[in-house]
Amino acid sequence: MMKLYYAVHTCALASHIALEDAGAEYSIQRINFAAGEQRKPEYLAINPKARVPSLVTERGILTETPAMLAFIAQSFPKARLAPLDDPFGFAEVQAFNSYLCATLHVAHAHRMRGYRWADDPAAIEAMKRKVPDSVAACYELIESKMLRGPWVMGEAYTICDPYLFTVAQWMEGDSVDPARFPKVRDHRQRMSERAAVRKVLAEELAEELA
Amino acid sequence: MMKLYYAVHTCALASHIALEDAGAEYSIQRINFAAGEQRKPEYLAINPKARVPSLVTERGILTETPAMLAFIAQSFPKARLAPLDDPFGFAEVQAFNSYLCATLHVAHAHRMRGYRWADDPAAIEAMKRKVPDSVAACYELIESKMLRGPWVMGEAYTICDPYLFTVAQWMEGDSVDPARFPKVRDHRQRMSERAAVRKVLAEELAEELA
Repeated sequence: MMKLYYAVHTCALASHIALEDAGAEYSIQRINFAAGEQRKPEYLAINPKARVPSLVTERGILTETPAMLAFIAQSFPKARLAPLDDPFGFAEVQAFNSYLCATLHVAHAHRMRGYRWADDPAAIEAMKRKVPDSVAACYELIESKMLRGPWVMGEAYTICDPYLFTVAQWMEGDSVDPARFPKVRDHRQRMSERAAVRKVLAEELAEELA
Repeated sequence: MMKLYYAVHTCALASHIALEDAGAEYSIQRINFAAGEQRKPEYLAINPKARVPSLVTERGILTETPAMLAFIAQSFPKARLAPLDDPFGFAEVQAFNSYLCATLHVAHAHRMRGYRWADDPAAIEAMKRKVPDSVAACYELIESKMLRGPWVMGEAYTICDPYLFTVAQWMEGDSVDPARFPKVRDHRQRMSERAAVRKVLAEELAEELA
């Protein structure tokens, strides 16, 4: 049985939803970022990057959301979470997820984690100020060029959908108005009505309140 | 026939090498960043992100290095550039590539492209100052935990190898001393002796000088 290490309000939510979508048997283990659990030796032994998510499998430990999402899709082919027999379609899925990971998530991270890229407090404040614009620029591209509707890749639900839903949870915190991006907003609503998403969000909330 | 849009000294080199490794039929088209070609309408029609690489295929256009590398591996299975029949092994390859894309490349980008994440010139200078440390931290993790040797994934050469070779070209520019990371340095040397790498580097150099 697989075990997902996650923290609340992080990109680990995407893999959590995908595991549920896949019908996988899995358990979850919360890492309390406020308590610094991600930097304790027990967790560094699992993921030396001190980040979430991590997925413990029978074969070993995986990290990095795009890799984990593709792994879940490939490991549970009956769930049809990606076009597994079509390298081009699969690459389109991966390109979308890579953009979320390396551009949108990175833009967002400059609000809370600017210390990764500068030491000067004034510089870290300057990074925070640009987040509303840099994140909104990502959504402009997603809205106009990438999100086909009703799902990211069109008629077929894929591993792109839980990932977009996950990062879109951060819009308000990043001072990006969802009303500017109606396709993204509708996608969020559509996702939030899925039973798997409701179950996963309830689980993470219960752990947070426990 | 596929067509790769690239710019010199960018991560597009990884896909260029992989196409050569795969034995693909392809052409290359240089985008001159110094002349701002990446922001001209002709190129934005190909890649609205105004970045390289882009890969024009018979089915459509792909972007994002991790997605393109996996596409090349899947499209040319005889070249055995990834463990295609093993979801876990494939995920390990993808996790490594995702780390290069979303953490190492991002750390590096704060030297030349800080304007993406702050407007204040002093903040952009502060970002530049941290690049030697933040990039070196990535190589510490790669050296100690990720690079198995002789190739990234061990005995088997994969799409991780041209990608690591590509980003490692930037070490000196980022003021990271390769001598601190002997496994990475040896990998670079091993890669530079491959015929495919020599051919690709010569092609890009010839285009630059043309």
